[in-house]
Amino acid sequence: MVCAVGREDGSIVEQVSIPTTEPSRCMPQILEYFRGKDIDALGVGCFGLLDLDRDSQSYGSITTTPKLRWRNYPIMRVLGTELGVPVGIDTDVNAAALGEAAWGCTQGLACSMYITVGTGIGVGIIVDGKPHHGMIHPECGHIPVNRRADDPMTRGICPYHGNCLEGLASGPAIENRWGRSPAELAGCEAVWALEAYYLGQAVCSYIYTISPERIVFGGGVMNQKQLLPLIRSEVSRQLCGYIQGKGLNDLDSYIVPSALDGRQGVLGCLTLAVQAREEARHEV
Amino acid sequence: MVCAVGREDGSIVEQVSIPTTEPSRCMPQILEYFRGKDIDALGVGCFGLLDLDRDSQSYGSITTTPKLRWRNYPIMRVLGTELGVPVGIDTDVNAAALGEAAWGCTQGLACSMYITVGTGIGVGIIVDGKPHHGMIHPECGHIPVNRRADDPMTRGICPYHGNCLEGLASGPAIENRWGRSPAELAGCEAVWALEAYYLGQAVCSYIYTISPERIVFGGGVMNQKQLLPLIRSEVSRQLCGYIQGKGLNDLDSYIVPSALDGRQGVLGCLTLAVQAREEARHEV
Repeated sequence: MVCAVGREDGSIVEQVSIPTTEPSRCMPQILEYFRGKDIDALGVGCFGLLDLDRDSQSYGSITTTPKLRWRNYPIMRVLGTELGVPVGIDTDVNAAALGEAAWGCTQGLACSMYITVGTGIGVGIIVDGKPHHGMIHPECGHIPVNRRADDPMTRGICPYHGNCLEGLASGPAIENRWGRSPAELAGCEAVWALEAYYLGQAVCSYIYTISPERIVFGGGVMNQKQLLPLIRSEVSRQLCGYIQGKGLNDLDSYIVPSALDGRQGVLGCLTLAVQAREEARHEV
Repeated sequence: MVCAVGREDGSIVEQVSIPTTEPSRCMPQILEYFRGKDIDALGVGCFGLLDLDRDSQSYGSITTTPKLRWRNYPIMRVLGTELGVPVGIDTDVNAAALGEAAWGCTQGLACSMYITVGTGIGVGIIVDGKPHHGMIHPECGHIPVNRRADDPMTRGICPYHGNCLEGLASGPAIENRWGRSPAELAGCEAVWALEAYYLGQAVCSYIYTISPERIVFGGGVMNQKQLLPLIRSEVSRQLCGYIQGKGLNDLDSYIVPSALDGRQGVLGCLTLAVQAREEARHEV
């Protein structure tokens, strides 16, 4: 978990990393970090699933998660009570999408997406300038995808779905399929062609569903710089000319890498904190 | 094309159907119908793709469509100019989604979807109570889906994508695969199990992406009343328990048939007309 202190103008004053162990060890470290820092508000971008329904009794709690000790943990309430400041919360990927919208490469756009490809695949969605939730919140790293017939991995590794996007295209899926880490596979063309096939397929699905004005990619797997151009090619190929125009005429500026060099999550949390402070002021 | 006159309270005063031929034949019939009817405003739910970008020169025009004579046709401008009333426009399926939200079974929900399964598969999406557009507008009847290995049709019939949802699960896809119309296949269990497999897969994808609070099904294929319960079962099976709670605990009220008996499109257009009138008043 990254903890940081920043200003309303988007400057990050200081930042530390705390291992995501279990709440009884991790939360005291987080609270210790922020105590005495004279913060006005806190923004939290958290792994999920989360309860983001403001009318719910468990608003701001983690709900179901493979991290068993965090299941049903009321992270927002604990932080707000202990630190005595307004707290804003969203998923880690919605926070990153918000960071890009506020400070990065989707500024001024009403509708955008942030896709992180790393240990898992997570997607944040901005609609009308705000993180989208709907009934729960987007989890579209888990959409079903077509397994390519010549994929040497016969079944994806998602413990829930097998062949969902995350199960076939996350960093661990790549490592499971080819026996080496993404970084060690940098020069293997077949690896990245297959990876781009899956991510391009998902992007097409997102374009048909959300119709974002721009799509931003981040996460460790995207450090393989050869991957993004391959994704653009697959998107162009798999759209089959069905929809054209607008951003799709220039995929180089439609599908882009994060402009914030890893700070998109922290900057999104800063935005959540500013919003939480404003809301608290209006409530007074 | 259905033309109707209604009142702000949701009552439809009269209604006619006009065959969708070509603009030079069809538009005079539409104009003749509305002239002298003393309408305050017009709402249009149109097949697409449409330009719904209010800042665009071609706002309210049909853009690309397989109906060649309608390509780039400025339907909104023609109707507004000829009838001299404010015109609101959206996709036919967004209009139906709006009709359900205003008068039907998604009233009071901020985020919902309407899926029509007929000649094609179209999807309307409501976010924050408004039809969602994003860069263009949703076209998520065309999302890629996994073809089931034992599907007797080796390639879906979408001329663009082959195996997209519409290519594998529209009414014509069913007829192409089994050699008879959906109505003639009513008693064939295998037909509806396969259909539910595809529609359930798409619903899972939509749940992960949009996270709607309720999903409404309409369209001719849904007249097969045995289909909806099978879709619910497939959604439950294919979600694999990954997300739970909220509406997913009660799929009978989460995935529902239209409550408006075919009037969802016309009622949505009535809502678009009311909104267009309000906007015109504010502009004065």
